[in-house]
Amino acid sequence: MSNHEKRAVVLVSGGLDSATTLAIARDQGFECFALSVDYGQRHRAELEAAARVAEALGAVAHRTLRVDLGGIGGSALTDPSIAVPETPQVGIPVTYVPARNTVMLSFALGWAEVLLAPTIFIGVNAVDYSGYPDCRPAFVTAFERVANLATKAAVEGRITFRIATPLMDLTKAQIIQRGTALGVDYSLTVSCYQADEEGRACRRCDACRLRSEGFRAAGLPDPTRYFR
Amino acid sequence: MSNHEKRAVVLVSGGLDSATTLAIARDQGFECFALSVDYGQRHRAELEAAARVAEALGAVAHRTLRVDLGGIGGSALTDPSIAVPETPQVGIPVTYVPARNTVMLSFALGWAEVLLAPTIFIGVNAVDYSGYPDCRPAFVTAFERVANLATKAAVEGRITFRIATPLMDLTKAQIIQRGTALGVDYSLTVSCYQADEEGRACRRCDACRLRSEGFRAAGLPDPTRYFR
Repeated sequence: MSNHEKRAVVLVSGGLDSATTLAIARDQGFECFALSVDYGQRHRAELEAAARVAEALGAVAHRTLRVDLGGIGGSALTDPSIAVPETPQVGIPVTYVPARNTVMLSFALGWAEVLLAPTIFIGVNAVDYSGYPDCRPAFVTAFERVANLATKAAVEGRITFRIATPLMDLTKAQIIQRGTALGVDYSLTVSCYQADEEGRACRRCDACRLRSEGFRAAGLPDPTRYFR
Repeated sequence: MSNHEKRAVVLVSGGLDSATTLAIARDQGFECFALSVDYGQRHRAELEAAARVAEALGAVAHRTLRVDLGGIGGSALTDPSIAVPETPQVGIPVTYVPARNTVMLSFALGWAEVLLAPTIFIGVNAVDYSGYPDCRPAFVTAFERVANLATKAAVEGRITFRIATPLMDLTKAQIIQRGTALGVDYSLTVSCYQADEEGRACRRCDACRLRSEGFRAAGLPDPTRYFR
């Protein structure tokens, strides 16, 4: 096996799912290049968490690409005029960011091509997926096809890209159990949609609720720091 | 037909092809939202040209999203350590930007979803395409599938996205003839890979050669300003 075949680009947001995904990629023997995307989030705590997670879990490099998706609006996560909901929502929530995973996988693909890294890890999940359409297997398969048609390296036959989604079929509790077994320190991670500047969570948004229920169902102590 | 169905997001780079694409979209009756992506280009002249082109050709809005693709390297267009070639190259050139059209279409998709604009125009071309894999019909079709799987609006059945590529099968000369018939002022556009700060072209790079040969083959005067 040549040098680059065990390279992987791993999308790391600073949240619980992507930290677990990075731990799984490392456990599978991949040399991990962690990529964070700053798409104009409301708070910086998540990106700081991403850097801590990448280092703690042994990524060989960590890059943050900034893009101002706020400029096109449409989401409570990037548009200050839309409030983050604190009660359960029906259907796809307003915290959905337009084309977010498509944008993030595009960046990951660009870096993977430069690195000749055949594998891109993304921590999407079809079970507790909060209704985001770009977390489903059909989306991932369609993007994999784009990756193998879009890139010089693939067209020249030097690489075949694969999008790895090790969390796809796991519940939040199973994700937490898996990560804990691999030594993930979840106190480093931030899942809350409206964490404060120190990365403390709100306890009430969708992400907080899913995370808290996950620890309870996993039978593990919740290390999350809350501001209320 | 409801309000949004004739909306289109049009990717406008400031070059000849995308200006022609915008003119065609307008001629087809679309209300055009022009989108430029600043992916860390070496020169700003192209982005300034994009703003001029969007205004001159009647776009109702123009946005520029900035992302630092230079952070992941790999192209002469974003990495100062790779020289822009001035002699014809074999195969896919070093001016290829990793995953560029995938990234740009992802942004266009995000904005199109917010606008409920079903059509995304991109000026890709399979004839004079300089060997870029993400300009081929198979790539465009694959991305269209991603668009319809990735987005809340499509999944909820409120929209079906289509990627329109009106230049796909035209030669450079045919593109220039079409645009000229639609009143495009090509002196506003910048195609050169290494234009100077005033948007004057180098005359020697691949883009300059294709453009100059296009005007000659079209039998039309070349309005390009050169710095040498």
